[in-house]
Amino acid sequence: MSKPIFVLNGPNLNLLGTRRPEVYGRTTLADVERSVREHAERLGLGIEFMQSNHEGALVDEIQRAREEAAGIVINPAAYTHTSVALHDALEAAELPVVEVHLSNVHRREEFRHRSFVSPQAEVVIAGAGPQGYLMALDYLARR
Amino acid sequence: MSKPIFVLNGPNLNLLGTRRPEVYGRTTLADVERSVREHAERLGLGIEFMQSNHEGALVDEIQRAREEAAGIVINPAAYTHTSVALHDALEAAELPVVEVHLSNVHRREEFRHRSFVSPQAEVVIAGAGPQGYLMALDYLARR
Amino acid sequence: MSKPIFVLNGPNLNLLGTRRPEVYGRTTLADVERSVREHAERLGLGIEFMQSNHEGALVDEIQRAREEAAGIVINPAAYTHTSVALHDALEAAELPVVEVHLSNVHRREEFRHRSFVSPQAEVVIAGAGPQGYLMALDYLARR
Amino acid sequence: MSKPIFVLNGPNLNLLGTRRPEVYGRTTLADVERSVREHAERLGLGIEFMQSNHEGALVDEIQRAREEAAGIVINPAAYTHTSVALHDALEAAELPVVEVHLSNVHRREEFRHRSFVSPQAEVVIAGAGPQGYLMALDYLARR
Amino acid sequence: MSKPIFVLNGPNLNLLGTRRPEVYGRTTLADVERSVREHAERLGLGIEFMQSNHEGALVDEIQRAREEAAGIVINPAAYTHTSVALHDALEAAELPVVEVHLSNVHRREEFRHRSFVSPQAEVVIAGAGPQGYLMALDYLARR
Amino acid sequence: MSKPIFVLNGPNLNLLGTRRPEVYGRTTLADVERSVREHAERLGLGIEFMQSNHEGALVDEIQRAREEAAGIVINPAAYTHTSVALHDALEAAELPVVEVHLSNVHRREEFRHRSFVSPQAEVVIAGAGPQGYLMALDYLARR
Amino acid sequence: MSKPIFVLNGPNLNLLGTRRPEVYGRTTLADVERSVREHAERLGLGIEFMQSNHEGALVDEIQRAREEAAGIVINPAAYTHTSVALHDALEAAELPVVEVHLSNVHRREEFRHRSFVSPQAEVVIAGAGPQGYLMALDYLARR
Amino acid sequence: MSKPIFVLNGPNLNLLGTRRPEVYGRTTLADVERSVREHAERLGLGIEFMQSNHEGALVDEIQRAREEAAGIVINPAAYTHTSVALHDALEAAELPVVEVHLSNVHRREEFRHRSFVSPQAEVVIAGAGPQGYLMALDYLARR
Amino acid sequence: MSKPIFVLNGPNLNLLGTRRPEVYGRTTLADVERSVREHAERLGLGIEFMQSNHEGALVDEIQRAREEAAGIVINPAAYTHTSVALHDALEAAELPVVEVHLSNVHRREEFRHRSFVSPQAEVVIAGAGPQGYLMALDYLARR
Amino acid sequence: MSKPIFVLNGPNLNLLGTRRPEVYGRTTLADVERSVREHAERLGLGIEFMQSNHEGALVDEIQRAREEAAGIVINPAAYTHTSVALHDALEAAELPVVEVHLSNVHRREEFRHRSFVSPQAEVVIAGAGPQGYLMALDYLARR
Amino acid sequence: MSKPIFVLNGPNLNLLGTRRPEVYGRTTLADVERSVREHAERLGLGIEFMQSNHEGALVDEIQRAREEAAGIVINPAAYTHTSVALHDALEAAELPVVEVHLSNVHRREEFRHRSFVSPQAEVVIAGAGPQGYLMALDYLARR
Amino acid sequence: MSKPIFVLNGPNLNLLGTRRPEVYGRTTLADVERSVREHAERLGLGIEFMQSNHEGALVDEIQRAREEAAGIVINPAAYTHTSVALHDALEAAELPVVEVHLSNVHRREEFRHRSFVSPQAEVVIAGAGPQGYLMALDYLARR
Repeated sequence: MSKPIFVLNGPNLNLLGTRRPEVYGRTTLADVERSVREHAERLGLGIEFMQSNHEGALVDEIQRAREEAAGIVINPAAYTHTSVALHDALEAAELPVVEVHLSNVHRREEFRHRSFVSPQAEVVIAGAGPQGYLMALDYLARR
Repeated sequence: MSKPIFVLNGPNLNLLGTRRPEVYGRTTLADVERSVREHAERLGLGIEFMQSNHEGALVDEIQRAREEAAGIVINPAAYTHTSVALHDALEAAELPVVEVHLSNVHRREEFRHRSFVSPQAEVVIAGAGPQGYLMALDYLARR
Repeated sequence: MSKPIFVLNGPNLNLLGTRRPEVYGRTTLADVERSVREHAERLGLGIEFMQSNHEGALVDEIQRAREEAAGIVINPAAYTHTSVALHDALEAAELPVVEVHLSNVHRREEFRHRSFVSPQAEVVIAGAGPQGYLMALDYLARR
Repeated sequence: MSKPIFVLNGPNLNLLGTRRPEVYGRTTLADVERSVREHAERLGLGIEFMQSNHEGALVDEIQRAREEAAGIVINPAAYTHTSVALHDALEAAELPVVEVHLSNVHRREEFRHRSFVSPQAEVVIAGAGPQGYLMALDYLARR
Repeated sequence: MSKPIFVLNGPNLNLLGTRRPEVYGRTTLADVERSVREHAERLGLGIEFMQSNHEGALVDEIQRAREEAAGIVINPAAYTHTSVALHDALEAAELPVVEVHLSNVHRREEFRHRSFVSPQAEVVIAGAGPQGYLMALDYLARR
Repeated sequence: MSKPIFVLNGPNLNLLGTRRPEVYGRTTLADVERSVREHAERLGLGIEFMQSNHEGALVDEIQRAREEAAGIVINPAAYTHTSVALHDALEAAELPVVEVHLSNVHRREEFRHRSFVSPQAEVVIAGAGPQGYLMALDYLARR
Repeated sequence: MSKPIFVLNGPNLNLLGTRRPEVYGRTTLADVERSVREHAERLGLGIEFMQSNHEGALVDEIQRAREEAAGIVINPAAYTHTSVALHDALEAAELPVVEVHLSNVHRREEFRHRSFVSPQAEVVIAGAGPQGYLMALDYLARR
Repeated sequence: MSKPIFVLNGPNLNLLGTRRPEVYGRTTLADVERSVREHAERLGLGIEFMQSNHEGALVDEIQRAREEAAGIVINPAAYTHTSVALHDALEAAELPVVEVHLSNVHRREEFRHRSFVSPQAEVVIAGAGPQGYLMALDYLARR
Repeated sequence: MSKPIFVLNGPNLNLLGTRRPEVYGRTTLADVERSVREHAERLGLGIEFMQSNHEGALVDEIQRAREEAAGIVINPAAYTHTSVALHDALEAAELPVVEVHLSNVHRREEFRHRSFVSPQAEVVIAGAGPQGYLMALDYLARR
Repeated sequence: MSKPIFVLNGPNLNLLGTRRPEVYGRTTLADVERSVREHAERLGLGIEFMQSNHEGALVDEIQRAREEAAGIVINPAAYTHTSVALHDALEAAELPVVEVHLSNVHRREEFRHRSFVSPQAEVVIAGAGPQGYLMALDYLARR
Repeated sequence: MSKPIFVLNGPNLNLLGTRRPEVYGRTTLADVERSVREHAERLGLGIEFMQSNHEGALVDEIQRAREEAAGIVINPAAYTHTSVALHDALEAAELPVVEVHLSNVHRREEFRHRSFVSPQAEVVIAGAGPQGYLMALDYLARR
Repeated sequence: MSKPIFVLNGPNLNLLGTRRPEVYGRTTLADVERSVREHAERLGLGIEFMQSNHEGALVDEIQRAREEAAGIVINPAAYTHTSVALHDALEAAELPVVEVHLSNVHRREEFRHRSFVSPQAEVVIAGAGPQGYLMALDYLARR
């Protein structure tokens, strides 16, 4: 598998480690990126890591993944619950997709129980914190 | 009618012709633009043609249309179902609007049955494929 | 294409031009029929034109179309929102169907937002007034 | 007021007096017609009295009323709850309409609580039995 | 029938004739009372006429009616849609009840389409303006 | 039991055997009628067999059954889901009613899961294809 | 067909004949078993007959049917409306399934209108009392 | 309080004063900014004033406010009703937030009755026009 | 503006300062009245201040305001969510109305998210505590 | 425990023993009061007993209980289902509350299944008739 | 009354006193059984006490009660909200049933607000902790 | 961590590898157990592995885990969507819980979108097939 895995992060995840640590822990997104890269190296996978607060930028990146990636790990954050555009971009990508949530969304507000991303994901992992990204890579590596 | 018609295209339409051809056909967006321009020329209409994956960019463009266009043909794609911002921009534009969908949205997922754009459109055309754009121009020309 | 197109009109459309002209305009159904026939002639299409206030009569006609028509243009009017029988008749017809509404139903009462006909139509055109019929013929001619 | 009042009766009302007398009483539709005619005569009103089990036939009759009647008294029976076609026909009629129900529909099945006719009626009378027709005439006479 | 009919009026009806005359007309509640008394006299009925803005006062009055009245004509106004207490008081009264609304509530806001009073009424009359009270008396007199 | 059983068929069933054979099989309605008659003869029952696309015509026939039939077997097809008029006609008939559906409606579209006929039927049989009619006769014969 | 038909009965059916006879009649489950066995013998079918109040025991039995039965007749009683486990067991069984209800569930409480079993059944028979089991065998024999 | 207040404005508010003046008045956004600055000066508050049609840009700005602002006044316009991303950004900001709407959203379309911003706001002010911004500053100043 | 402003307070607000201080603070209703009077004096406004636990008494007072007040500030408390009578009284008053809530109702129980008062209010202020009353007066003074 | 228990009764309970005895029995409210007083005396509890048809009067009384009572037994009758004001008053009272219903509300109309009082009650007792009051006192005495 | 009362306990109640003591207290199920037996002895009642995590086992026990018990006290715990089988078993039992919940279910998760047991219970007691069982026995003893 | 991990499997999972292999693959439950044991050994974890079709047996096992396990991996299969008893047992267990689904439930029937288990799980993994169990162990090992 020579193409890299795209690891995409949605809105407000750049605040990780500073925002509501009782829910998300104190690990920053830079920490996550570092451990993702280390784990990927162990698994022999390349990584492109990206975060944006812009729905359109995430769509652009998924479209780029479509050409250049071997798979997608995505934590769509708030756009999980509102973005049909992400739904359609992932459908078009025709790649294996793993949806990751740091917290267990089923324990939070009602509006977080609906996901437009899950129907396009092969695997959904919620509540495992930053380790969820590593589990996602494990899945894609063994696939 | 000396001002042009703005033909606006929403997220993932740049993938046209490559994504789910069994639903949308093999025509690319460049093909669509070309036939739109040819048809407009026959009708004596000017055209501005644009696509974006960004909701805000589409709002910006509708606001520009408000000053510079004679009418709007819009295929809002995924934003059809989620964007109140498009609704408000079109309402402010006070122009004739034709909403176009390549596929018949009523045959697809439940969440595609709601449109925030339709209440602001004069005409809605769904399911005619790329020809829908030409029918939209016909409507605006004869209006 | 030697078989004609059936152009079917649902309940109260015989009042066209006299009822709520601010919504539907002043064109009568006879006017519509005339311009449909002229347009069809230009396109080299034959036409059968019919209107009924009876759901069963419309079902009968769709069944006849199944044997004798090359396609159906239907403005089901009030039966759009209540008739599973039309849904089933159109499904059985296995013909290209274009659903036409004079007004943009999305701007009207909530109960007009549901259509039993749209899932059986290839194309839906709403809000273009009598011109919608001509656009429907254009679509069927180029198909 | 030289034009007559049309008194229209929906499906199964021809069974009046034989069907569920504990709900509707033992008066037949012929009895109702007789007392309606007598009461109308006292009020100086002409009457056209009609019953049909066919939705389309009721639409046809309302359309005739539009030209020939001074007002409509309608007991739409089962079509009350399902007919958008009656809704549209009454809207087009632009006449004073009184909706009459023999029984108090609010005490019966849930599906009888919705009326497509009420938004087009000036007055709604439910539960007064056959006397409801006479009250409807009283209203139209004094109007 | 020697006991009187209680004619009960709910909140804000004391403003009749001054409030939204395009919906309710210019007749005041005093005018209504006068014509109700005159009509009742013609029919040989006694009348107790009362209005209150207090739900509890209306319940008290219905309980008094239970002992002292031959029937109830009630225009519950806003309490129609919110008062289970009126529902229970009327149920306990075990008297013939006619529910009257000046306007056709089915043409107004959604929250006016639910009535807690209708299941306890024998007859419901809506939209006939002040004449509705007289029709209610007619019904009770002929009963 | 000297009166016949009425076997009534709703809209589009005249297309049986030609429409969606993967759902309904290749047996025509004439085939059904033949096997129904043969089976009835074996059971010593008389049969009246009828099909109509018109809701009103089905109501008329049920009313006739009320006088002339010993029981009703009805496949209401599309009217199952929309017709309060059939509901009321069957209620008035006061006869044993067996509701038959060729396919198992519970496996099809959501809107086919509601039946206005079932509350008036003694027995409901769905999914047994044409054999369902014979089972219905068996039930009525042994009753 | 050498494998037997499994006839499975859900919770409280062991009380048959003693519980609410006005709904289910006076026939006991032993009576049902006897007539099922006699009828099966006439049809040349073998029978395994079983009843349990335990959802898990019914799942176990359906799994056994998967290996050892030619078809399933199941009256899931209360578990009809709540058991996804039965749904999944029947789906896995890949056998012809006939769902039987003694009473017409459509005439009873709202919560009995939902069935998790129907989407897995080929045929559904409701309201025919104990005869429903025999009709189910007839269907499986002729299949 | 040495840090400034961020005053953030959502999509289409740049059209203020030109769009639907009967709802929002004729004051432009520049007028609003001017009076906000003057009022802030009187109260001894610093101001950063910004408008964007891009959801992501508003999220970015709220994240900047988190570091650099003493409080937020936000008129999220269309994103009020659709943006979980704004909800999360404001939650992360841990600042006093005042949500302002020029019009009373409760008098407008149903879809404007839901706010994802209100649960994160300390105060909500709707319907006071441009004065709402000044009231918001008053609140933050006295806090 | 010589007529006073009516400041009306709904049920349980007389307990202010003693009930749930973590939500409403320790200010009593007498404190609120005092600061309202002082602020009104500064603004040159007269005040009538009133509290009642009785829905009918609040309706009575709004009707009095209709004749004697220049505007209404109302904190309807629990009746916000249940009173159509307040809705109708405010509609009849035809005065500028400001609805005030001490807490941000959007952060509390679901049933507090519906307001029958908001559609009749010009301005809604929620969550500003007692200061909300002063902001309401500011609004009415500058209007 | 020197303060008394307040026993509060909502609308129409003064009719107890005369209204729908098949649901509530023939015991009058005076009988209930008598047995409550006797039982309280045995338990060494003081009692204040009160009934009102006025929601506001019940709120007033709960507020008085807040100062003067050791606990509340309340049968809110119809206001159970509609009164947020009772909810708030009980919340403010910060006393042990037992909610009593004479009948089992779960067996009655749908609208009686919602209670605004239950979330504020420590204990709910329904269906035990007048004995429910005594059970409530038992609970408060042993607490 | 010589037959005993069956006291039945649903899933997880065997953990009583160890699980979530802040909701259910520290009393174990053995403690409850002991105080139930002591209280029953005082009242002259026999007791059968049972707990199971199996829905089917509870159905079996209710069926045994039907023959051998004078009444049932049941705390169905989780099966309250999901078991139609318990509903049907209790209906068949034709015994006085008291439903007991240790906590006030109305203060807990939404899904605990629906009970399939309540419509079959004569009395419902919630929130009184273990004392609820004793109150249930009191009720049955005095009945 | 000396206590073992309990790996619990719900109804029909014993059919794994034979049932709908296109959804779940061809791996049997014995295969899963084997790879779980191997993986656990690598991670230094003990395992108890169990499957049952009985809801009550799963509750029993969770209760045993409460005393004897260090954590729970559970694939509740059909009981995910219907079992409040599992919800309560897991809540009582006070152990780290990982919920595993072989398929992505979000892509399947609507009724599989609700989980009573997720609110009690720390982590949810769906769609990873048998590998999901190994990922669950990884999570518990690193925790």
